Amino acid sequence: METKTNLFSLLNIFVFLASTTHGLNQDFCVADTTRPETPAGFPCKKVENVTANDFVFKLRYPTDKIPPFNFGAVAGFAPQFPGLNGLGLSVLRTDMPVDGVVPLHSHPRESELVLATAGKITVGFISSSNVVYFNTLGVGDTMILPPGLMHFEINVGDSASTFFAVFNSQSPGLQITSNALFGNSMSTDLLESVTLIAASEIKKLKAVFGGSN
Amino acid sequence: METKTNLFSLLNIFVFLASTTHGLNQDFCVADTTRPETPAGFPCKKVENVTANDFVFKLRYPTDKIPPFNFGAVAGFAPQFPGLNGLGLSVLRTDMPVDGVVPLHSHPRESELVLATAGKITVGFISSSNVVYFNTLGVGDTMILPPGLMHFEINVGDSASTFFAVFNSQSPGLQITSNALFGNSMSTDLLESVTLIAASEIKKLKAVFGGSN
Amino acid sequence: METKTNLFSLLNIFVFLASTTHGLNQDFCVADTTRPETPAGFPCKKVENVTANDFVFKLRYPTDKIPPFNFGAVAGFAPQFPGLNGLGLSVLRTDMPVDGVVPLHSHPRESELVLATAGKITVGFISSSNVVYFNTLGVGDTMILPPGLMHFEINVGDSASTFFAVFNSQSPGLQITSNALFGNSMSTDLLESVTLIAASEIKKLKAVFGGSN
Amino acid sequence: METKTNLFSLLNIFVFLASTTHGLNQDFCVADTTRPETPAGFPCKKVENVTANDFVFKLRYPTDKIPPFNFGAVAGFAPQFPGLNGLGLSVLRTDMPVDGVVPLHSHPRESELVLATAGKITVGFISSSNVVYFNTLGVGDTMILPPGLMHFEINVGDSASTFFAVFNSQSPGLQITSNALFGNSMSTDLLESVTLIAASEIKKLKAVFGGSN
Amino acid sequence: METKTNLFSLLNIFVFLASTTHGLNQDFCVADTTRPETPAGFPCKKVENVTANDFVFKLRYPTDKIPPFNFGAVAGFAPQFPGLNGLGLSVLRTDMPVDGVVPLHSHPRESELVLATAGKITVGFISSSNVVYFNTLGVGDTMILPPGLMHFEINVGDSASTFFAVFNSQSPGLQITSNALFGNSMSTDLLESVTLIAASEIKKLKAVFGGSN
Amino acid sequence: METKTNLFSLLNIFVFLASTTHGLNQDFCVADTTRPETPAGFPCKKVENVTANDFVFKLRYPTDKIPPFNFGAVAGFAPQFPGLNGLGLSVLRTDMPVDGVVPLHSHPRESELVLATAGKITVGFISSSNVVYFNTLGVGDTMILPPGLMHFEINVGDSASTFFAVFNSQSPGLQITSNALFGNSMSTDLLESVTLIAASEIKKLKAVFGGSN
Repeated sequence: METKTNLFSLLNIFVFLASTTHGLNQDFCVADTTRPETPAGFPCKKVENVTANDFVFKLRYPTDKIPPFNFGAVAGFAPQFPGLNGLGLSVLRTDMPVDGVVPLHSHPRESELVLATAGKITVGFISSSNVVYFNTLGVGDTMILPPGLMHFEINVGDSASTFFAVFNSQSPGLQITSNALFGNSMSTDLLESVTLIAASEIKKLKAVFGGSN
Repeated sequence: METKTNLFSLLNIFVFLASTTHGLNQDFCVADTTRPETPAGFPCKKVENVTANDFVFKLRYPTDKIPPFNFGAVAGFAPQFPGLNGLGLSVLRTDMPVDGVVPLHSHPRESELVLATAGKITVGFISSSNVVYFNTLGVGDTMILPPGLMHFEINVGDSASTFFAVFNSQSPGLQITSNALFGNSMSTDLLESVTLIAASEIKKLKAVFGGSN
Repeated sequence: METKTNLFSLLNIFVFLASTTHGLNQDFCVADTTRPETPAGFPCKKVENVTANDFVFKLRYPTDKIPPFNFGAVAGFAPQFPGLNGLGLSVLRTDMPVDGVVPLHSHPRESELVLATAGKITVGFISSSNVVYFNTLGVGDTMILPPGLMHFEINVGDSASTFFAVFNSQSPGLQITSNALFGNSMSTDLLESVTLIAASEIKKLKAVFGGSN
Repeated sequence: METKTNLFSLLNIFVFLASTTHGLNQDFCVADTTRPETPAGFPCKKVENVTANDFVFKLRYPTDKIPPFNFGAVAGFAPQFPGLNGLGLSVLRTDMPVDGVVPLHSHPRESELVLATAGKITVGFISSSNVVYFNTLGVGDTMILPPGLMHFEINVGDSASTFFAVFNSQSPGLQITSNALFGNSMSTDLLESVTLIAASEIKKLKAVFGGSN
Repeated sequence: METKTNLFSLLNIFVFLASTTHGLNQDFCVADTTRPETPAGFPCKKVENVTANDFVFKLRYPTDKIPPFNFGAVAGFAPQFPGLNGLGLSVLRTDMPVDGVVPLHSHPRESELVLATAGKITVGFISSSNVVYFNTLGVGDTMILPPGLMHFEINVGDSASTFFAVFNSQSPGLQITSNALFGNSMSTDLLESVTLIAASEIKKLKAVFGGSN
Repeated sequence: METKTNLFSLLNIFVFLASTTHGLNQDFCVADTTRPETPAGFPCKKVENVTANDFVFKLRYPTDKIPPFNFGAVAGFAPQFPGLNGLGLSVLRTDMPVDGVVPLHSHPRESELVLATAGKITVGFISSSNVVYFNTLGVGDTMILPPGLMHFEINVGDSASTFFAVFNSQSPGLQITSNALFGNSMSTDLLESVTLIAASEIKKLKAVFGGSN
């Protein structure tokens, strides 16, 4: 009996502490995207300005698809999804039509868990030893991709496909191999030297990807 | 012309290095689950024994469901999914029927990204200040849950629901609140003292959750 | 002889560098609590404004105790103890009278080292498998508590007790189980569903812990 | 009603998972000190061999004190206190008689929280800019020491003193400045060159600290 | 006087501790490369088997160069240089003749500091936005390359060049873009789909880089 | 044919995303040194203000040498070399004439890779067990120094020497042992107590190193 009353008092003390020192309460650090980022992420919003909405992000079928194709991608990274800030996770949704392809790319630093939720896709990554590890994923299948290695996804089913990629970072990078190669301003000569791809092919692809020089 | 030949030679050197020193090649560390874990995960399988299959895990509708209920959970953590080892991600699939509930629980240390893929669920987490942050998720919606805080999921739709939870750890912990409270061997008296839940209620719930004393 | 003179010159250069580039001197990052936190802590005060006082914190017998009980808790976390910022440690003092109890609670993410300095206490934590690991501590005894798991402390001696808890974080969280369960605004129905605790018991405890709905 | 029965089934599934996959259960990694350490610590003991005793360590008044002096130190680091393994904390107890001194030393990498529990001590650390930050601590006072900087403790009271040091590492290093300088096998000439301390003084101190050459 | 004697006793105690508990002494963790790696590196050699030689690595002009070209690369990573284990650094030396080129490549996860020590080189990296950041380095110049992004080095001087690359990892990965693209076993069709490089060009380059299919 | 057009559209989507959300693009975080540091480094400059120049730093023969000696040191740490911010590496160049000496010092927390680029030097570090690990380095030789331990470099050749030290931190600390000991304001008495160096020697060295009291 006594004990319980004592306890109640103690709880009051903790409640008191919690209400007076926000240091007892750093459960999360929702991004204040109006302030400059740091290497560890954005500064935190004040707790009193945080709402449930900061912790949710709805990745619908991409509205930014380009006709006549019905596929695209939508990202839930810290700038779009401020509740992720400091929590080490983020998400990207990708939709591919029949014969769709996500081109070869890599995410510097980030591991990626691919989860197929519609259709049938083949995913492959290329190791430092130039071995390709392929898997074909149906609905509910997952694949893990090590950080920093080139990989791709293709729709190998006979219907549209959807997959979600989750990263162990609040704000992953993305380097699309052909975009990086042929969409920049490096001279064709230099690019040929560092890749051995023929100058004529480089010029053709620069026209496609928007590269100059 | 000269340059390209030079380059080819250089590439050969790199290939030579790659073939002779496995240190140039630690892209991943697939778990050798036959050896004891360390604080950083399992020792690595030899690269020559790694196959594409180590990187994939298929989370189908849980086969371990208990009649007459059609729901359950299946985990893809490092012991089941060895490619995750050292890569900082893991995944859990949960299926709930109409009116299904995932009871209050927490994951020590791990952030969790919830992704709804079927049905409609409400997810809530309780902060250190005892505020509950609720969101209702439809297909394609995600919610982030900060590490170590109690949370729950309930099916609020009129059909079965499925969600995937991705964690920023290869091997997350799981503490189900009522299981932890009422499934252990702590005496009823002690448990009453540290929770203020009435002894009679504790005894009733110990019978449900398998606790003793 | 020559060598020593050379050396002196070299030392002067280092001193010169140290005085002109504060980058040579980031030994600590004392919290500037007037600026917003980041996921890695508060921005740093300028070194010239740092004093010895920033590195000390005096955890006396809690002044915020509530009559007639002589126990309570006082926290030395980064907001109160700015020298901790960025250094990965913090401290909490707790005093319990005879029969005192620190209720079941957890610290999301943080390991805790308990050090008993007066009296005799029993400490227990509940694992993910619902096993309770108990130890009784006298003066000078320590216990380690893994991150994120529920634990409690009780005074089992015949005099008042004091213990200090040190955390591997500058600003640990704190979730008191019964406060979290019964001090929030979740409906009794929902709470019953996610814990199986009876609605009548929940209502009774909501009255104690200040919960609504 | 239905819901509760459903829930019970779900809990059973989780229990089933927990009992069959130890990956759901990595709450701790108690050191198996019979196996070689890794950069992240010792391999883990099997959970079934872990007992409550692994999580407790009793730092009594040092039994290894040397007559006629009644002071000394005792360490609770991972090799002595296996429950610390992987959890990022450790502890050292030091007792000083009147006029006792803990000589200048540093801990590579580790932050240290000093907690005075008996007597009165002065603690100082020297920054990279050669500023000394001093504080005098009575019972219940704490001081934070940044990683890697030289510091010392002296008993400035009129009775014996005790303090506990907690580190943010399971296995901190310790470099006692004079021991490191004068207890090694570096030649006196070389040592004079790299410190400017006179050869005669070095020779005298080598005799005290056991250095050679 | 007294104080100094006391101190000497205390030092003896520390020495005693150091000699009996290797936990006081984990200054380094030299790789035992005969045991399997973990995600945090190799298990440690026993301290008594460590020699000064474990901490040194001599990166001479590459002996594995291929005639008639006088350039190549030599790596000092943890498998070759066991003292690096657990310490977060490694080094690679590269020598290029006039007109030499280090082809486009990336290091998953690792930052790289390039230090030119002979000749004159141009270094460029491509950002996620396809911007190329170029710098030309003479002797004593350094450039930092962010993790996971494609970069290259070319000799732009009129003599041979040498540079050292230091990585913030004991065992960095290496993915040479053209090797990865054209040295693997992916079908030409698939490769064309994921890069848009023409099948004819791919076939030509597969012959150069050893790819199949 | 179809596939390629689809792909081009997809690429456009990614480009679109990249141009609208800077969260897809956190490849680096170049220091904005006008803002206060955080425990993780400086806030980031806006990407549009970043230039190639931010990623390069030229460590020439030290211009701040003091006659008549031709040696010195120059640091490329985050405040001087903003591209390092958040990337975990930094660099220091040191030049020693014949008989030059870099005095005993330590870097709190940071591992150091020493690379000799001119002359011949001996490098030694002292372990926690007072063992000195020595190596003599010629041009192209490297040595790894564990974090937080005292070490020194001496020129043992018959010509000037240069070495570069790379650290696994953007902003390492530096504590020169004799400067720390004899350049501060601690009283001679106290210093004698915590080191056992004779008061007369301390007074002599305080005059050399600028200490007071």
